Amino acid sequence: MRILLTNDDGIYAPGILAMHGVLTDMGPVDVVAPETVQSGGSHAITIRHPVLWRSIQVGDKFTGTSVEGTPGDCVKLAINALLGQRPDLVVSGINAGLNTGIHVLYSGTVAAAIEAAILGCPAIAVSFELYKDMEFDIAAGIARSVIDRIGQEGFVPGTVYNINIPELKPGLPRGVRVAPQSILPMDERIERRSDPYGREYYWLTGDFKNIGGESDTDRYMIQEGYVCVTPLRFDLTERTLMKKMEKWEWPDVATKL
Amino acid sequence: MRILLTNDDGIYAPGILAMHGVLTDMGPVDVVAPETVQSGGSHAITIRHPVLWRSIQVGDKFTGTSVEGTPGDCVKLAINALLGQRPDLVVSGINAGLNTGIHVLYSGTVAAAIEAAILGCPAIAVSFELYKDMEFDIAAGIARSVIDRIGQEGFVPGTVYNINIPELKPGLPRGVRVAPQSILPMDERIERRSDPYGREYYWLTGDFKNIGGESDTDRYMIQEGYVCVTPLRFDLTERTLMKKMEKWEWPDVATKL
Repeated sequence: MRILLTNDDGIYAPGILAMHGVLTDMGPVDVVAPETVQSGGSHAITIRHPVLWRSIQVGDKFTGTSVEGTPGDCVKLAINALLGQRPDLVVSGINAGLNTGIHVLYSGTVAAAIEAAILGCPAIAVSFELYKDMEFDIAAGIARSVIDRIGQEGFVPGTVYNINIPELKPGLPRGVRVAPQSILPMDERIERRSDPYGREYYWLTGDFKNIGGESDTDRYMIQEGYVCVTPLRFDLTERTLMKKMEKWEWPDVATKL
Repeated sequence: MRILLTNDDGIYAPGILAMHGVLTDMGPVDVVAPETVQSGGSHAITIRHPVLWRSIQVGDKFTGTSVEGTPGDCVKLAINALLGQRPDLVVSGINAGLNTGIHVLYSGTVAAAIEAAILGCPAIAVSFELYKDMEFDIAAGIARSVIDRIGQEGFVPGTVYNINIPELKPGLPRGVRVAPQSILPMDERIERRSDPYGREYYWLTGDFKNIGGESDTDRYMIQEGYVCVTPLRFDLTERTLMKKMEKWEWPDVATKL
């Protein structure tokens, strides 16, 4: 079993190191990850610039490929150019910070997994709630047990599993739950400030504390202390509305060129 | 009817100018768009840096807000801070280049529309096939007639319509079609080169010419010379797989802290 490991926090991040540690007994692990932090970078890909890479040694742990690009670039580069063969599994993470709710859309961690699925691999994204002194090694062990469970059913090409792990406290996590992505907007605040030259700027902030009346979403499960697993798709078509639209009459748009 | 207009090609791009021209008789149009080109930037948002903005005059056409950020930032900033009220419709485009198939996932144009939908607005993304001497004004007129048709059914908050317009040739477009997003991977090529210092880099390229056996997708409709409209969603949950996973037994993940 050949595994490609990537992330969006960069190749030196503690999360990818911890994840590497729990994957090596499954088979050879190729690490191809961004040189720098790409948080909030979503599914960006680099098309207007070249992308450089280099082989680096991370501590005494592993040799990996550091890419001056996005998580999406890393997966494309690894699968289409560097590895010489398609990996049997792609793991992205562990991300420092949850990727639940609409954060799934902003997440580079999840985007890397989706890119791998587009390219025909089974893919898993792993994210971990942000708090002081995050125990990445314990979270990685939890992720591994969830990955093993998924593997029992078979790693299916094109599938994406989004795993989120809550803050670790005595007795937690309470278990593993399967739940859909919340689609509630963030409780956003735009902080308006002035720069040293008097020019205005804004700083996006906000949190997820208010989950409304939800009781069956990824955000709710995390709040309740469960590890949450959500299978994802990358066909964004809204089929219910599409069925209705197929019956609409559309205007004539032929141009007189 | 108050409209927010944005894009990912930047506020000086010809596409947004053309789109502005065909929207002004619908009501006041607020333009809030990136200062610079953000193509391929997907749904990135800026959370680790502040975002600056300024009011600018674009030719003799309009005064808009130029944002040093992503399309997602523009929509968040406009709706949560600048406009003082939620727009009745958000239009993103016209993008110079199609956003069909998996390009939907990489597209800043589409991401801006999705962000608007998350924030409770009806949203429309408009993209136009890339070719020499693109007639943006004609494409904008076509987009307007499609937008009017959607409006006849009512602009529903949270809905996203992705409109793609093919190259304009005599007799084309042949009409308007509703079709789902293709999920085929790109026909990618990784060009490997060396920089002036002998260091290797890659340049991502590829195209969509090979659409396999598809005959009912956005990519196919464009190839056949139709304007294609695809309704999109931003809940990525794969419900069919989720239903199966809910029956799986999951491992005990309680930690001994």
